[in-house]
Amino acid sequence: MLRIGIIGTGNVARQLFGVFRNTEDLAVVQIAGRSGTALKCFGDSVTTTTDFTKITDADIYMIAVSDDAIATISQFLRDKSGLVVHTSGSVAMDVLDGCKRHGVFYPLQTFSKEREIDMQHVPFCLEANSHSDLELLKTLALKISDAVYAVDSETRKTLHLAAVFVNNFTNHLYYIGQQLCEKEGLPFEILKPLIKETAEKINHLAPKDAQTGPARRGDVETIKKQLKQLDDSRHSEIYRAFSSAITELSG
Amino acid sequence: MLRIGIIGTGNVARQLFGVFRNTEDLAVVQIAGRSGTALKCFGDSVTTTTDFTKITDADIYMIAVSDDAIATISQFLRDKSGLVVHTSGSVAMDVLDGCKRHGVFYPLQTFSKEREIDMQHVPFCLEANSHSDLELLKTLALKISDAVYAVDSETRKTLHLAAVFVNNFTNHLYYIGQQLCEKEGLPFEILKPLIKETAEKINHLAPKDAQTGPARRGDVETIKKQLKQLDDSRHSEIYRAFSSAITELSG
Repeated sequence: MLRIGIIGTGNVARQLFGVFRNTEDLAVVQIAGRSGTALKCFGDSVTTTTDFTKITDADIYMIAVSDDAIATISQFLRDKSGLVVHTSGSVAMDVLDGCKRHGVFYPLQTFSKEREIDMQHVPFCLEANSHSDLELLKTLALKISDAVYAVDSETRKTLHLAAVFVNNFTNHLYYIGQQLCEKEGLPFEILKPLIKETAEKINHLAPKDAQTGPARRGDVETIKKQLKQLDDSRHSEIYRAFSSAITELSG
Repeated sequence: MLRIGIIGTGNVARQLFGVFRNTEDLAVVQIAGRSGTALKCFGDSVTTTTDFTKITDADIYMIAVSDDAIATISQFLRDKSGLVVHTSGSVAMDVLDGCKRHGVFYPLQTFSKEREIDMQHVPFCLEANSHSDLELLKTLALKISDAVYAVDSETRKTLHLAAVFVNNFTNHLYYIGQQLCEKEGLPFEILKPLIKETAEKINHLAPKDAQTGPARRGDVETIKKQLKQLDDSRHSEIYRAFSSAITELSG
């Protein structure tokens, strides 16, 4: 039985708790968080505390808090003999240097309150300051996911940046699409089959081969016309940046 | 029985032919195209011609060629009594003014040679120069799809622009994500669950509410660091354009 303590009450903490509690040979021994109200969401089946000086002994402590709180939280875990990890994509492992055994357990996925994620397909990017602890994290990750990777801090930073492009920026493109539809009194629904197919297509075609559109064809006239259609300068800026990047690539 | 003539041999022509031939009460009477080789892909079950002066009589002529060839092709259909439509998102209906009965039959989807599309979920945007022909196009579209919309030329232009954002530009973000992964020797596979979830999330949350990331949080430090990480100026330009748009929106 692997005993896990979770520190944090946000989306990642919640989703990890959800999967850990339903996995054999894993026990969540405690959830620690600043907010008593947030802790209540975890139900009565797990011990909780708002007092970080009273963190129960565990085999692995999982710090799932906002990036800039990780260092502070880790101070409370300095004397623990268990493995202390954080779950962030962009924070280097050495922020946990104060803890003898430390590492990273980064799920490369977007989590929100409203949606339960099937962890089995979530890639876990793991790092630890010893070979044996990396193996321990692998054992844990493989219990809940099929996609487990050893990734050092530098590489993880690039991955996190890639995630910003394919998740944050893509979502903003969806937002622009929605705005354009609503301007014309059309439901956003009309774009959803296209959005779905765009995301599915890359499972069969490399993005470069899946690229279509005016910039891909070098269709300067359409690009000019479409730029004129845009009345939001932020949208034009995005349109321009993509059009030159795609044109250059296709050239 | 509705008799359809298809002019064009590209992806749209091919996919429409594939669904029309398998739909009751529809008959594709002929496919016309410049290239004999391209016409061969349609098999022996349909009559084909490379001679546009020999287009067989039909109830609906569907011009599925590149945007700038539509006007020229339509010259060959001036004397026909059937309804002449094109399938383009960005070309106004009046390009077909020379044909007495004319309209637009625009499938809002990305088509490629390699992938068969389930037409049932493809939104069809219809327009015609008479009420009865709009009804005729609706009858046709509803035989193959559940999502049928009457959309005038101006609105369709905006829709096409929205499609450029959510399809062309999103696909380029996938490309950048792939580049960043490959730079680190990681397989693009690692980003695919995130890409999938990003696209699915908007079925449950509005894009504005689904937005996360450094720009959404106003995390200027991370934005600065990530910009430094990028060594391709086209990627930096895209990063900057999104970060200011998202920051402004979230502010």
